[in-house]
Amino acid sequence: MKAPWVTYRPELTVLDCTIRDGGLINDHQFDSDLVKAVYETCVEAGLDYMEIGYRNSKRLFPKDKFGPFRHSDEEDIRNVTSDHDPEATGLKLALMIDAGKSDWSEDILPCDQSVVDLIRIACYVDQVPETVEMIHDAHEKGYTTSCNIMAISIVQDAEIDQALEVIATTPVDVICVVDSFGALYREQIDILIRKYLAAVKDTDKEVGIHAHNNQQLAFANTIEAIILGANRIDATMAGLGRGAGNCPMELLIGFLRNPKFKRRPIYKLLRDHFVKLRETVEWGPLVPYNITGQLNQHPRSAMAHRAGPGKDDYVDFYDKCVGDV
Amino acid sequence: MKAPWVTYRPELTVLDCTIRDGGLINDHQFDSDLVKAVYETCVEAGLDYMEIGYRNSKRLFPKDKFGPFRHSDEEDIRNVTSDHDPEATGLKLALMIDAGKSDWSEDILPCDQSVVDLIRIACYVDQVPETVEMIHDAHEKGYTTSCNIMAISIVQDAEIDQALEVIATTPVDVICVVDSFGALYREQIDILIRKYLAAVKDTDKEVGIHAHNNQQLAFANTIEAIILGANRIDATMAGLGRGAGNCPMELLIGFLRNPKFKRRPIYKLLRDHFVKLRETVEWGPLVPYNITGQLNQHPRSAMAHRAGPGKDDYVDFYDKCVGDV
Repeated sequence: MKAPWVTYRPELTVLDCTIRDGGLINDHQFDSDLVKAVYETCVEAGLDYMEIGYRNSKRLFPKDKFGPFRHSDEEDIRNVTSDHDPEATGLKLALMIDAGKSDWSEDILPCDQSVVDLIRIACYVDQVPETVEMIHDAHEKGYTTSCNIMAISIVQDAEIDQALEVIATTPVDVICVVDSFGALYREQIDILIRKYLAAVKDTDKEVGIHAHNNQQLAFANTIEAIILGANRIDATMAGLGRGAGNCPMELLIGFLRNPKFKRRPIYKLLRDHFVKLRETVEWGPLVPYNITGQLNQHPRSAMAHRAGPGKDDYVDFYDKCVGDV
Repeated sequence: MKAPWVTYRPELTVLDCTIRDGGLINDHQFDSDLVKAVYETCVEAGLDYMEIGYRNSKRLFPKDKFGPFRHSDEEDIRNVTSDHDPEATGLKLALMIDAGKSDWSEDILPCDQSVVDLIRIACYVDQVPETVEMIHDAHEKGYTTSCNIMAISIVQDAEIDQALEVIATTPVDVICVVDSFGALYREQIDILIRKYLAAVKDTDKEVGIHAHNNQQLAFANTIEAIILGANRIDATMAGLGRGAGNCPMELLIGFLRNPKFKRRPIYKLLRDHFVKLRETVEWGPLVPYNITGQLNQHPRSAMAHRAGPGKDDYVDFYDKCVGDV
């Protein structure tokens, strides 16, 4: 098609991961009113999935230190979603579990006992063996599954190829390109999306994109992935997410032409909740995140810098990042 | 070349338009210390051009209402640039003149009487006739010249073709793609850059890019233009510029691989001057600018909205933009 952006692909679905990814800023210590408001906005905006949180280990993330959506107990999910009904709302719920950080064998219930439809398994590339077990476990329990290999910008090509080869043999439904460091330029996104698409060719699997905004490229890289054929798209309200945040939902929905997606409820959410949230929680493509993104580094040093007294001393931070220390 | 981003094109030059474009926010009422600091940063960062301001009409923009860089008198330029020396600094100075808003015939001195090297002529497409005269005038006075047709996202293709055909016959050195509304997605940038490149084929003219950040796409669209062959690149410190601002210089310089460009002086400028500037001047891809960008509208309504008491009422603004009013 010559002008694909004037129309839309019905098979393209949008996942909101505002609370799940945003909770990495504040140990998921969100007011339940905010979580409810995000949920209601996902419904009103016509989104396909809301990833409401992690179901990670209560041993590693104790209940007295982390908010409810680090674990996303079924009861906590039901409380903020009015006993979620996917049929009535048109929205499906998702959880993320981390390889190495979740007690998935016990904590993931059979799908018919859960309000959740989609389990997303996040891993680093050296955790592919456990990830394969996690995919099988979730699939056998009846869930749709996604595999999200994180920090892909620091993985060597040959290792990505091998990981994809293994994961493609599992029953996983989606494999997601995850630019955890917000380091990738569009030509690099192209290479990865094409590689992932090639890995799932002749299967029913879909490719997804999860971008971070360190270099103000999250939205642009998401568009690029969409152009190339990625059909599982992540975004967050106001771009909320760890460090520089994610692809902003309000921009994504403005770009997509599927009439089922609505922008107005998102603007309402931003007005009623996110202006206030910014007073206590910081995220966005600030200079220290620009720097770690450019250097293809984890944003944790930038997050620590922004939490310190010299948070606006960009020179000091740059020197530390590139110095011989 | 298979991996062009690991190297660089020596012929690619970077122009800083921080003060010129940023002055559209505050009628160019900047402290001269800030203008000096930007100038010194341009020198230290190895940039090629600094567009220090407009030389627009003192009749239309009276001296008692507008700061000095709406007119950029030679004396004012010399004051903040220590009698600028292009040889010693490696930096050339540029001015912008607007068709319809400048007394160019009198106000542009012969180049050998000026510290300025480059005159950029900004126009709307219906002002091409005056623009052609302005190009000839500046060229005959000895300047390098650039033609910047603004608001290109609302000009019909046939009219762009005709404008380019006319402008290509002039002695202009650069023709710049200007996305004034921050409305363009990368496929649209592609079409325009290819069109402009075709118009200057077999000449010595170069194509430039001037992007606005309404949809957080200014940097991405600038990269896209570079990939396709644009060699005259605009950016501003911290992305300062009207409304949503421009392509951030600190991101652009992190992307370019020419070792003559330095990032550290830019971080120093942002730390020492721009953190404070944000307390009194607002710019960046805020929701109202997202909305006008998506709707391909001039940002003036969003600027007015942000200046009013309901500045965070995004729903009200959206309703006004899309409503039947």
